[in-house]
Amino acid sequence: MTILVTNDDGIYAPGLDALAKAMKTIDNTTVVAPDREQSAVGHAITLSNPLRITEVYRDREFLGYACSGTPADAVKLGVKEILDEKPDVLISGINVGANVGASLIYSGTVSAATEGTLLGIPSIAISLDSRSNDDWSVATDFAIKIVNMVLKNGLPEGVLLNVNIPKLPPENIQGIKIVAQGKTNFNDFFEEREDPRGHKYFWMCGTMVAEDDNPEHDVTALAQGYITVTPVHYNLTAYDTLKEIRKWGIENELGVDAI
Amino acid sequence: MTILVTNDDGIYAPGLDALAKAMKTIDNTTVVAPDREQSAVGHAITLSNPLRITEVYRDREFLGYACSGTPADAVKLGVKEILDEKPDVLISGINVGANVGASLIYSGTVSAATEGTLLGIPSIAISLDSRSNDDWSVATDFAIKIVNMVLKNGLPEGVLLNVNIPKLPPENIQGIKIVAQGKTNFNDFFEEREDPRGHKYFWMCGTMVAEDDNPEHDVTALAQGYITVTPVHYNLTAYDTLKEIRKWGIENELGVDAI
Repeated sequence: MTILVTNDDGIYAPGLDALAKAMKTIDNTTVVAPDREQSAVGHAITLSNPLRITEVYRDREFLGYACSGTPADAVKLGVKEILDEKPDVLISGINVGANVGASLIYSGTVSAATEGTLLGIPSIAISLDSRSNDDWSVATDFAIKIVNMVLKNGLPEGVLLNVNIPKLPPENIQGIKIVAQGKTNFNDFFEEREDPRGHKYFWMCGTMVAEDDNPEHDVTALAQGYITVTPVHYNLTAYDTLKEIRKWGIENELGVDAI
Repeated sequence: MTILVTNDDGIYAPGLDALAKAMKTIDNTTVVAPDREQSAVGHAITLSNPLRITEVYRDREFLGYACSGTPADAVKLGVKEILDEKPDVLISGINVGANVGASLIYSGTVSAATEGTLLGIPSIAISLDSRSNDDWSVATDFAIKIVNMVLKNGLPEGVLLNVNIPKLPPENIQGIKIVAQGKTNFNDFFEEREDPRGHKYFWMCGTMVAEDDNPEHDVTALAQGYITVTPVHYNLTAYDTLKEIRKWGIENELGVDAI
């Protein structure tokens, strides 16, 4: 088995290190990750700049390959240029901070797993609902289990798993739930400042706000202390709305003759 | 009515100019767009750099506001810092190149409309299936019609419209179809080069490949000469797979006791 480990917090992130060590207990593991933090980059790819790959060592031990560019770039480079053959599984994380609700669309952690899925690799994103880096053990234990399950069962074409781990000691974890993506919003705002030359600039601020209390959704289940597993795809069609919009008569009223 | 126009090709793009002029025939229009091309940035937002806003003029005529950062940044800044109140509609484009199939997840054009939707604004992304910039008339005519329809009918919460225009003269357009997102893949690869100092670097190459011949999907309908309209949401749950994965017994086998 070959396991590709990546993330969006960059190759030096402790969550990546913990995940890579856990994966090595399963089988051959290669780390390919962005050379710096790339949080909130969404599914960006780099078309207008060249990309580079650097081998990274710490205390003479080979850590993995750092890539310039985004998490999706790192996955493409890992699969097409670094590994000799397609890995059996890809896991992205362990992200510092949950990826539930609307944050999925901003998440570099999830986008790395999406890119793996596009390349035909069973892929998992894993995030820890914490802003500190102290204890990865619940997340790494679950990562080993879910990777083994994916290796055994496979994943349907075009589907990845998005996993979130509550920041709780093992004895306080309520259980594991397979849930849908919940609803969140952002109360974002900009803080206006002035630079030393008198020019205005802005910092994006704000936090995620839960707009969901359905216990079968990731937002609520995670807040209630469950490990959440959400199957995610990239068919973005709002099927419920297809019918509704057909009632508008766009197809008739704005037909060829009308143009 | 207030209309917010944005794009991912940058404030100087001819497709943005054509779209803004068309929107001005409807009502008050404000342009807020990235200060440079931001294609394939996905739903990136800028958290670790400050953002700036610049007023842009051409031939003494005010064009709009240029923002450093991504299309999603531009929309957030436009709504929170530039406009006095939330616009009645947002339209992003006209993109040079179609946004169908899997390219939706990479598209800055679509992500700007997604950000508008997250902010509670009825939003539309519009793209022209062409790599040249010569004739925007079919796209601008349709943009005026679809914006008027959205202003009249509204859009369901959390849903945007993704519009694609074939590169055909008006008389060869086959009609308008409301369709689902189709399937595509990418035959991407990296071209390896050496810089003047002897270091390796890579350019991302490749094109989109249709993997879909369903005439009710955007990929095929657009190729057959139809204007396509796809309702898009950002609930990424693969509902079909929820049941399948529950059969694995993750919830039981990997329960609290097992951790």
